[in-house]
Amino acid sequence: MSKRPNILFIMADQLRADYLGCYGHETIRTPNLDRLARSGVRFSRAYCQSTVCGPSRMSFYTGRYVGSHGATWNDTPLAVGEMTLGDHLAATGYRTVLVGKTHMRADEAGMARLGIQQGSTTGQRIAECGFEPELREEGIYNIVGDQSRHANAPYNQWLKEHGYEGDNPWHTAANSVTIDGKRTSGWYLDASPHPANVAAEHSETAYLTEEAIACIDRLGSADPWCIHLSYIKPHWPYIAPAPYHAMYDADAIQKPQRHERERTSPHPVYAAFQNLRVSQAFSDDAVREAVIPAYMGLVSELDDHIGKLLAALEVRNLLDDTIIVFTSDHGDYLGDHWLGEKDFPHEPSIRIPLIIRGPGLAEGHVSDALVEAIDCVPTFVDFAGGDAEHPRLEGRSLTPMLLGYDVEEWRETAFSEYDYSVLRVRDEVGQPIDRANFVTAVTERYKLIHFPGMSPMLFDLHDDPEELRDLGDDPDHAHVRELLTGQILDWSLRPRRVTESSAAIERRTDTQIERGILLGLRDEADHADALAAERARGAERLAKAGPV
Amino acid sequence: MSKRPNILFIMADQLRADYLGCYGHETIRTPNLDRLARSGVRFSRAYCQSTVCGPSRMSFYTGRYVGSHGATWNDTPLAVGEMTLGDHLAATGYRTVLVGKTHMRADEAGMARLGIQQGSTTGQRIAECGFEPELREEGIYNIVGDQSRHANAPYNQWLKEHGYEGDNPWHTAANSVTIDGKRTSGWYLDASPHPANVAAEHSETAYLTEEAIACIDRLGSADPWCIHLSYIKPHWPYIAPAPYHAMYDADAIQKPQRHERERTSPHPVYAAFQNLRVSQAFSDDAVREAVIPAYMGLVSELDDHIGKLLAALEVRNLLDDTIIVFTSDHGDYLGDHWLGEKDFPHEPSIRIPLIIRGPGLAEGHVSDALVEAIDCVPTFVDFAGGDAEHPRLEGRSLTPMLLGYDVEEWRETAFSEYDYSVLRVRDEVGQPIDRANFVTAVTERYKLIHFPGMSPMLFDLHDDPEELRDLGDDPDHAHVRELLTGQILDWSLRPRRVTESSAAIERRTDTQIERGILLGLRDEADHADALAAERARGAERLAKAGPV
Repeated sequence: MSKRPNILFIMADQLRADYLGCYGHETIRTPNLDRLARSGVRFSRAYCQSTVCGPSRMSFYTGRYVGSHGATWNDTPLAVGEMTLGDHLAATGYRTVLVGKTHMRADEAGMARLGIQQGSTTGQRIAECGFEPELREEGIYNIVGDQSRHANAPYNQWLKEHGYEGDNPWHTAANSVTIDGKRTSGWYLDASPHPANVAAEHSETAYLTEEAIACIDRLGSADPWCIHLSYIKPHWPYIAPAPYHAMYDADAIQKPQRHERERTSPHPVYAAFQNLRVSQAFSDDAVREAVIPAYMGLVSELDDHIGKLLAALEVRNLLDDTIIVFTSDHGDYLGDHWLGEKDFPHEPSIRIPLIIRGPGLAEGHVSDALVEAIDCVPTFVDFAGGDAEHPRLEGRSLTPMLLGYDVEEWRETAFSEYDYSVLRVRDEVGQPIDRANFVTAVTERYKLIHFPGMSPMLFDLHDDPEELRDLGDDPDHAHVRELLTGQILDWSLRPRRVTESSAAIERRTDTQIERGILLGLRDEADHADALAAERARGAERLAKAGPV
Repeated sequence: MSKRPNILFIMADQLRADYLGCYGHETIRTPNLDRLARSGVRFSRAYCQSTVCGPSRMSFYTGRYVGSHGATWNDTPLAVGEMTLGDHLAATGYRTVLVGKTHMRADEAGMARLGIQQGSTTGQRIAECGFEPELREEGIYNIVGDQSRHANAPYNQWLKEHGYEGDNPWHTAANSVTIDGKRTSGWYLDASPHPANVAAEHSETAYLTEEAIACIDRLGSADPWCIHLSYIKPHWPYIAPAPYHAMYDADAIQKPQRHERERTSPHPVYAAFQNLRVSQAFSDDAVREAVIPAYMGLVSELDDHIGKLLAALEVRNLLDDTIIVFTSDHGDYLGDHWLGEKDFPHEPSIRIPLIIRGPGLAEGHVSDALVEAIDCVPTFVDFAGGDAEHPRLEGRSLTPMLLGYDVEEWRETAFSEYDYSVLRVRDEVGQPIDRANFVTAVTERYKLIHFPGMSPMLFDLHDDPEELRDLGDDPDHAHVRELLTGQILDWSLRPRRVTESSAAIERRTDTQIERGILLGLRDEADHADALAAERARGAERLAKAGPV
């Protein structure tokens, strides 16, 4: 590519990979995303770094595992020293703009400690997660307390410009339905069969799409850009505007992935998640039959807007200048495995869609490599010609797969983390606060979930792709558990040199002796000898490391 | 205590715990440190977080494990977002002043990214590792290149004021000897029997002691202070000024802790350390007999200056207002286990002296608890009345032991980390750069060294206190290896929430429902019911957590 490409980085919220046609869903209609996949590269095994929004997104944006960036829960501030996508791309001359949600909370204490004013250029950038805040809307609009404080939210203002009334039409229109003439919160599962009190052309999804297109026009072609279009749906509340609310019926939903066996002496942490109110609700088929059609409607609505975006790029002659990335922060159980919400790491929750299409990239390629959310930033930095081996990046550029190459040396295991210390689950399990977490290791064939101080869970994804048989204490699989536990250990001990990259260390040729540090030398003859040996070693190492 | 105590935080460099009389050395003379121990609390099992200066000190100063602060090697910059002792104490109104060495390199790239000017107040504080830089001298004075650039180092200026000549008398006088009329670098092991070309009253140790006393006087009694007096010795070059160079002879040195068995098929990483030039030198008894007396002389010199400091505090009536802490950043093999230098984690290297004496603290108490370098900052913050549970602190306050209490719930395992990626050892072992590290776990009885992707080493410190028998593949100890490996795993998976403390999470009583997040509720009746349940859980958790 002569000109560096724009990057349109689209994220859905709580979208399961397998709720897209191109990922195998048999009844859902997602023609635009399917087309995107056919004209680009689809990753069949992409995993999020955490199954809850905040930590997952902080991994997406920093290119680092949750245990490295430390924002382990929603609204846990992202530490002031972390770098995000915007910081990495800014170094390459890209403009990096946000339209939508980040779920990021700024580290105000850290900023104060470093004397960074909230209103300063740096302060604003940090507070906005490294993005130029074209439009930030975090969604899930607060319905508690005085509604007038929400009146100025951009989406509320926009809704009012389009004739919606009240202080917070985001809640009263977009997030509510009308049942028997009475306005009812869309958060209640009973609301799902009803259309939202908002017209489809005024939904959150429609609004963000419109804003993204306006943003593309405003940015123009002076500098290459990366727009992070971060949709709020199909995340709860599970209600869709007409006609999407009625696009699917109970016959269109997939049968649940669950087995009675899973409720017979499950792992204690799994049991505690099963006991959550939301899991009990979604274990009821009536709830699934009411909610899943609405969820599917929201996905099809999103797909329609992806179509509009693609058309907008085409009409502006930008399709060949732009890399389009589509993904999600995590999935949703929707009753599978007797669970609601996300949180636990079965495939419906942990596996995410990842489709990348762009000029010069492979078309119609499907990669089965184990890729992770943290690979996105290094990939984008690679496109932009930046330093994809920056010490703060733990992911790896996907460029080889995107060019259709087989990658010989790739990770054998993907990792995802979860901290349940704030949840009722911890009280029920009785874990101390600093061990109320688990790590999931996924290989080509197996998935092991390690719980500190407790026995693990294990699934054989070949023989049991629906993950219905926990092999956590199966004697025949002791060696598999040992192997994967060892991989988690070595992964967790990865050097976390945030200020110096492994690549830089690999190319170090300076010698201790040249810096005046003389160890174990008796005299001048020793000195000359040791210096020659150190220099030879530096040259050898450099030759082995190869060119930058 | 009505007034908050001053803290005199003294650190030696490369001082083995067992080279003090109070730690059992039979011939060394350290009467002042022995007296300090008798009038305070001596920790018999204190461990450093890394056996190399930079990472160890960054753990001392941040109160965090190396894998958390990320400065894994000497001169690896300490990431800009990290907090040091100075930052923690500043929040309590203490002045925190440095006299001597830190081995800290500032994260200039990170500062630039956050718009922090090097000359600004914040920039200076970060660059000086959070200390007020009363006097910073990193030691090990560079003898390479143009010596005139060293002319302005404060110690060089001070030496010149005292009649020493040349641009860099630090090297030519303090770090050199004269053999047969010829000036010879003190770095050469052959130099050790000779006196340094500096008078004892002008040595680095004398200089820093004098500066520390002047600093005490300058600080006065307006605010409580913490002075970090960070000596450069007995770190190499191994030469002492007269009369210390001749205070000990070969008869006074301890027999080496080593066994021929250790050279018979040692662990590959251990073997590579044995192969280093410095290890081969110290495996020669002639080298030990030349160098160890000088090392012991440096320790006795240091002890004399501790005596001067104590006298200076006494004469100023400050002894009852001041907590005195004495420790070291790591030890030195001195030929034990066929090794020189530090690096590997046998006790001579990993175990450090830690003596704390102060008003209201226990006198003559010896604590066998497993304590770590990272416990220092929380202890000091505790003295100062600050937040010892700050999310960035991983250590624990030692206050209970200092008051002489038995602590029921204390850590069962201490951890230390080492990254050998920059060393020749890695080339020899053939490890990839991101697995060229090891972690040591020490319990009351055992020590396990875990090497990613390789077999471990194991010692039984009860049956084999000199660590001469590696049980890394002993079939009878498989369960011990499994247990300790599991402890390393769970430790490495500790939640690293740098912006929110576990204590804060423990006391969270806000409910999702109160924030408007309604999961799995069918209708209003469900809503009221769930809210009541969440509130009850919050109250229960708070009651269990107890008062702040």
